[in-house]
Amino acid sequence: MKRKTLDLSLYLVLDPDLCGGPEGMVRTARLAAASGATVVQLRAPGWKKRQWLETAIALKAALRPFGVPLIVNDHVDVALAMDADGVHVGQEDLPPAEARRLIGPDKILGLSVSSAAHLAGVPDGVDYLGVGPVYPTGTKPDAAPVLGVAALAGRVASARLPVVAIGGIRGDNCAALFAAGARGVAVVSAICGQPDPAAATLALRGTIDEFLPSC
Amino acid sequence: MKRKTLDLSLYLVLDPDLCGGPEGMVRTARLAAASGATVVQLRAPGWKKRQWLETAIALKAALRPFGVPLIVNDHVDVALAMDADGVHVGQEDLPPAEARRLIGPDKILGLSVSSAAHLAGVPDGVDYLGVGPVYPTGTKPDAAPVLGVAALAGRVASARLPVVAIGGIRGDNCAALFAAGARGVAVVSAICGQPDPAAATLALRGTIDEFLPSC
Repeated sequence: MKRKTLDLSLYLVLDPDLCGGPEGMVRTARLAAASGATVVQLRAPGWKKRQWLETAIALKAALRPFGVPLIVNDHVDVALAMDADGVHVGQEDLPPAEARRLIGPDKILGLSVSSAAHLAGVPDGVDYLGVGPVYPTGTKPDAAPVLGVAALAGRVASARLPVVAIGGIRGDNCAALFAAGARGVAVVSAICGQPDPAAATLALRGTIDEFLPSC
Repeated sequence: MKRKTLDLSLYLVLDPDLCGGPEGMVRTARLAAASGATVVQLRAPGWKKRQWLETAIALKAALRPFGVPLIVNDHVDVALAMDADGVHVGQEDLPPAEARRLIGPDKILGLSVSSAAHLAGVPDGVDYLGVGPVYPTGTKPDAAPVLGVAALAGRVASARLPVVAIGGIRGDNCAALFAAGARGVAVVSAICGQPDPAAATLALRGTIDEFLPSC
């Protein structure tokens, strides 16, 4: 999966706690990929890198049959070591221009932005923006202040890149995000830790297909 | 500074808390390098990578006049981004063979080992081993059990690489480590946070020069 053909519509960010550890993350990723998730991101802030690497390798193998790209959060070295499809960095991680230089021209590069100042500082080489939190969320303790849908629409209007909305997104509140111009929604707890992650993904997929503009 | 000419005799590991943050780390590193430290390692487990990168760049500039190499702990991506002299990995970090592949053949690569099993698993491409903790230490909460000097001597005898002893090392307890075969001592609190880091380094340097075998 290369950056040119990236489908951001249903972007799953794995959470180690909600998924019950590495094996649960791989199981959740496989079920989600089989049920309509289009991108999977490995994010595990508390882990040491040996664990990151082993889990990323397992996820890559699990996702390959579905053609779903694996994005590694923050750790460009882990992504390089296991040849991930891309990396996602935040404002306090390696600068996106450095990340792009390290991963080369063909990999996917995502950047989290929240404020208008963040948006103004996006360099060339970024493929998509993660914008949020659009709704209150419990899964990222250090998240920025809640943006809301109107601010999301403003960010989308200012951005020259596709935007994935993130933060507190569920099936029943995602329609407004597509109306605001988001090209996709990133979810954590709407899939991770759900009693039936496949059913949860299928339900989200149905809602997204209903509201995502086809243009 | 390349791996072939590496002088491990007085290896300073910077601690953000003891040094009083990034500026204190740069100041401490400069004073230590001017006073006989031969290697400086940046280690800051709680930091985000933007902070790692900025501090590593500042350290590299501060150390350059002294010809003292800067080693980046754990984060190979940070080391790649700012062209560090080398990286140091532990048993739970990226595997040393992966780290070597990412940094190329010319950079310095160190590996922490504690148990005999660790020592048996050292791959080609590692330049030196950090062995410890040889004495009780308060600056690494997740350190392995204390080895003691006899076990250090055993590790040195089994190792085919130069060994730097680490853990609770001060001027008054380092002679035994050289007698046990260590090629250098790594210190944290013996320099970081000392009222006069330059004087502390000079004193250590004098002791090391007295006891380090010249062969």
